[in-house]
Amino acid sequence: MMRNFKFLIPAALAFLSGAGLAAQHPTMAEVLTASSPVDWRPLDPHNTLYVELPGGRVVIELAPRFAPLHVANIKTLTRARYFDALSIIRVHDNYVVQWGDPDNRHPLPAGIAKIAPEFDSPIPATMPFTRLPDGDVYAPEVGFSDGLPVARSAALHRTWLAHCYAMVGVGRDLDVQSGSGAELYVVIGHAPRHLDRNVALVGRVVKGMELLSGLPRGGAEMGFYTKTEVPLPIKSIRVAADVPQSERSNLEVIRTDSAAFTALTESRRNRPEDFFKVPAGHIDLCNVPIPVRERPTGAAHSS
Amino acid sequence: MMRNFKFLIPAALAFLSGAGLAAQHPTMAEVLTASSPVDWRPLDPHNTLYVELPGGRVVIELAPRFAPLHVANIKTLTRARYFDALSIIRVHDNYVVQWGDPDNRHPLPAGIAKIAPEFDSPIPATMPFTRLPDGDVYAPEVGFSDGLPVARSAALHRTWLAHCYAMVGVGRDLDVQSGSGAELYVVIGHAPRHLDRNVALVGRVVKGMELLSGLPRGGAEMGFYTKTEVPLPIKSIRVAADVPQSERSNLEVIRTDSAAFTALTESRRNRPEDFFKVPAGHIDLCNVPIPVRERPTGAAHSS
Repeated sequence: MMRNFKFLIPAALAFLSGAGLAAQHPTMAEVLTASSPVDWRPLDPHNTLYVELPGGRVVIELAPRFAPLHVANIKTLTRARYFDALSIIRVHDNYVVQWGDPDNRHPLPAGIAKIAPEFDSPIPATMPFTRLPDGDVYAPEVGFSDGLPVARSAALHRTWLAHCYAMVGVGRDLDVQSGSGAELYVVIGHAPRHLDRNVALVGRVVKGMELLSGLPRGGAEMGFYTKTEVPLPIKSIRVAADVPQSERSNLEVIRTDSAAFTALTESRRNRPEDFFKVPAGHIDLCNVPIPVRERPTGAAHSS
Repeated sequence: MMRNFKFLIPAALAFLSGAGLAAQHPTMAEVLTASSPVDWRPLDPHNTLYVELPGGRVVIELAPRFAPLHVANIKTLTRARYFDALSIIRVHDNYVVQWGDPDNRHPLPAGIAKIAPEFDSPIPATMPFTRLPDGDVYAPEVGFSDGLPVARSAALHRTWLAHCYAMVGVGRDLDVQSGSGAELYVVIGHAPRHLDRNVALVGRVVKGMELLSGLPRGGAEMGFYTKTEVPLPIKSIRVAADVPQSERSNLEVIRTDSAAFTALTESRRNRPEDFFKVPAGHIDLCNVPIPVRERPTGAAHSS
């Protein structure tokens, strides 16, 4: 699994151990520099959302494999321009940013039906799964699938997306079928993993998190904005495929089933940078970065 | 350990199990309402800092038990007014907010000596330790001591503070003795536990996190502000004991060795609120809230 990266390990150090270990392993930056184009994949414009805020664009990669009904609803809502001119109504410190229409002043467009919860799903036979070796407090197994943090249980025969930083979820009321996709939230704090299997996660913010996480916190209960606070307007939300090619973001995401990603994870489990005197030896699911970058010029525009 | 809270469990439900479980357990709000005054302790004004920002006050509880040399340095720096008129120079998304004097334009006051790292310490015989039952990805044992998230290893005979949200650490260069306390950071994202045992943690923000976490992210490498971005000035930092009684914050923190805190943790491990359909059954160290509140009127002002 370490192919591509051996050349970064000086042969003279190959037999050192202990304190010498740090020098043997590439940093994350070195892993990414050494990665090859096949270790990356472009975003699928049909499953990418652009949330246009006054400060810039937030790019969300949707996860139709995990929540197909919710993703379909969200795309229907987006194409009906349901979200345009709605606002960010909640910024709950160390928890979530949320937008929607809390007073139900905007009717839902046609085609938004009550749907199954999609909080978890059967483990598919063909799903890629790059298992993290360090275990997890919440689930029997965790790892990555399609660029997303995933948990699963062989005993339950179920898999589910994990509430890590930047994950996007569907707000709901008490009824498990009340989450249509019209109310969305993004995790902006320490992973609230207690929400796993209780809410439908539908994707991940791959660019622009700082436009959400840096917003002023709401002063009312649960981080909602009070009447006197000015909620941030959403200029528009669009499916990338509906945006002219020239206005699309041109991003690619590391393939989490690539050797590069495995090397990256290893580099984060035992940080080789000189700063670190005691490598952790472990890493938790939500502390593993999933790099996204501008697609090198020459590669086709797509997302 | 469940004293005080049994009355919240209706006797008729005592023999239910499974789906009925949720109704048997109090919510965190109910735990806090049912807590008694002895479950709380005031902050020690001699180990409390007030960071005065344009937007308000950030209150830091220092941890002299874990980092006595660094805490002494920080109090010396504070009393020499070293921090006043310095700025917040770094807001790194999902990581840290940091302040200091990066260009060394302000000489350190007398009495700031090079000190031992204090990244961890021997496990003291008398230290309270409320162990979390759910394990941890990074350390053999985790729990709480004096209101702080703590990890420890019996094999190493060492204990250390954990990098959870709101923890305050001492910035340093590559040299492990280069952190004087003149450069401080606060965790504003998912717990960067890989920093554990690599940096001296010196306390926790107990009030005002939103004044730090909601700041605009810096545009330069590692979240530092660029020349054209305006860093937020620090009006002053003071030791609470040096501030007139009438201007002090009047806060108290839950005692993490109390029955109330154990009940709170249990309530967060298995959320009893109707919203939760699948209780997690576990919780990770940095997902456990450590409540702080205004000290009820009638209790002596102190912090």
